Amino acid sequence: MADPIKTRLYVDSPLAEGQSVGLDHERAHFLRHVLRLDRGDSVAVFNGRDGEWRAAIDGFGKGWCSLTVAEQRREQDTAPDLWLLFAPLKKGRIDFVAEKATEMGVSRLWPVFTRRTDPNRVNIDRLRANAVEAAEQCERLSVPEMGEAVPLDRALAGWPADRRLYLCAEAGSARPVAEVLRDAPPGPAALLVGPEGGFDQSELDEITKLPFVVPVGLGPRILRADTAVVAALACWQSLAGDWTAGGSDRRPPFRAPIP
Amino acid sequence: MADPIKTRLYVDSPLAEGQSVGLDHERAHFLRHVLRLDRGDSVAVFNGRDGEWRAAIDGFGKGWCSLTVAEQRREQDTAPDLWLLFAPLKKGRIDFVAEKATEMGVSRLWPVFTRRTDPNRVNIDRLRANAVEAAEQCERLSVPEMGEAVPLDRALAGWPADRRLYLCAEAGSARPVAEVLRDAPPGPAALLVGPEGGFDQSELDEITKLPFVVPVGLGPRILRADTAVVAALACWQSLAGDWTAGGSDRRPPFRAPIP
Repeated sequence: MADPIKTRLYVDSPLAEGQSVGLDHERAHFLRHVLRLDRGDSVAVFNGRDGEWRAAIDGFGKGWCSLTVAEQRREQDTAPDLWLLFAPLKKGRIDFVAEKATEMGVSRLWPVFTRRTDPNRVNIDRLRANAVEAAEQCERLSVPEMGEAVPLDRALAGWPADRRLYLCAEAGSARPVAEVLRDAPPGPAALLVGPEGGFDQSELDEITKLPFVVPVGLGPRILRADTAVVAALACWQSLAGDWTAGGSDRRPPFRAPIP
Repeated sequence: MADPIKTRLYVDSPLAEGQSVGLDHERAHFLRHVLRLDRGDSVAVFNGRDGEWRAAIDGFGKGWCSLTVAEQRREQDTAPDLWLLFAPLKKGRIDFVAEKATEMGVSRLWPVFTRRTDPNRVNIDRLRANAVEAAEQCERLSVPEMGEAVPLDRALAGWPADRRLYLCAEAGSARPVAEVLRDAPPGPAALLVGPEGGFDQSELDEITKLPFVVPVGLGPRILRADTAVVAALACWQSLAGDWTAGGSDRRPPFRAPIP
């Protein structure tokens, strides 16, 4: 019996039996020199559309690696339709947000500039690289889409009417998060987590007036913005998302090799 | 009117009006040279027993600072009785666990060595320093107690019968976390999060046989251990802990200055 496949890679190419997939320099190097894989070894690949496939390494060249797709391992599933809007944070913390939000199953990561947002630009490539790495490791079959970093009011101006926006960066008058999410109607949703300094009061007043916004309270302690992201996503997934179904038998403990 | 107090410090000393409190070199330096505070300026102090007090800076010396306690700002509250047992992780990740678990309101942080735990020692002083810093910033009135790092089976051997232990590092057969916690009986609780590599199967079998252990499922994706910590704590706090009450008006947005 073959060894279990330990490596999952997100690729852009279409995936179907017999299809060839080329990997760039960085990944070729990683497979060959870090993981010490060789011709004939298997990896798992996914592209967010065609499920997960086994692929065998055909060979390495100078700065490339080519794979041939073999059989399908998992069919494409549908991830919950959950966006995360968040004010950009400094480097370590924003990397963390991309990693955690991906593991927690968001479908779209959307950095938005609030009035008190500290960093005034976002490295979307870096955000995406963190999300890809997290998706590969957490067994997702997709990578969250990246929203273009825009001022919050612009993001809210074109808001789709059927998508509820749960506002987390909130003073204590909000209803407790579980009380709200327990009765959440099904359908598309989004979470908004404010900057470390909190929203500007007039900004907060404007947001809470919007018909699709529902404030949720995250308890009596002051959470850092990155903590609030994971905490709010956990509440949503456990009460309204894909943690509500019984576990599948496929799921191994944390980060174990893929069987 | 005085400026709002921006600085909260955890101290060991008893706190009462007129009491003197001495600060060590590091904190004296921090107040004087980083925050540029001066004689007569106010800070907030708490010790986990006497609530929070305003204290005024009496003066700085070479390597020390002395404060005089003025009036009480908040009475001591009771934090939820929730322990977190976790397998030690490498440096950045374990710092993160200490910070996040403190913000999320755990009463005891307890590193336990599982069969597959990678680091075989824990720097408890570092863990505690991270917890103290997080407690100061998140408005807690206490710092989590640190459990002595021991092998997991030793921790479980002397387990108090009335404390439920929710096991998070779990294969997919566990019931969804919200389903379990929604009906959780009140009383002392603990969460156990396994190591990155997952529990050893025989270890897992032994743990799940224990009468006080209840496995909970954290959804279909593989979470990193540090993600699982925040996610599980959020589920517990929102469904069984102190996030269930309505917000108090005292609570400002994230990390805003204390009024």
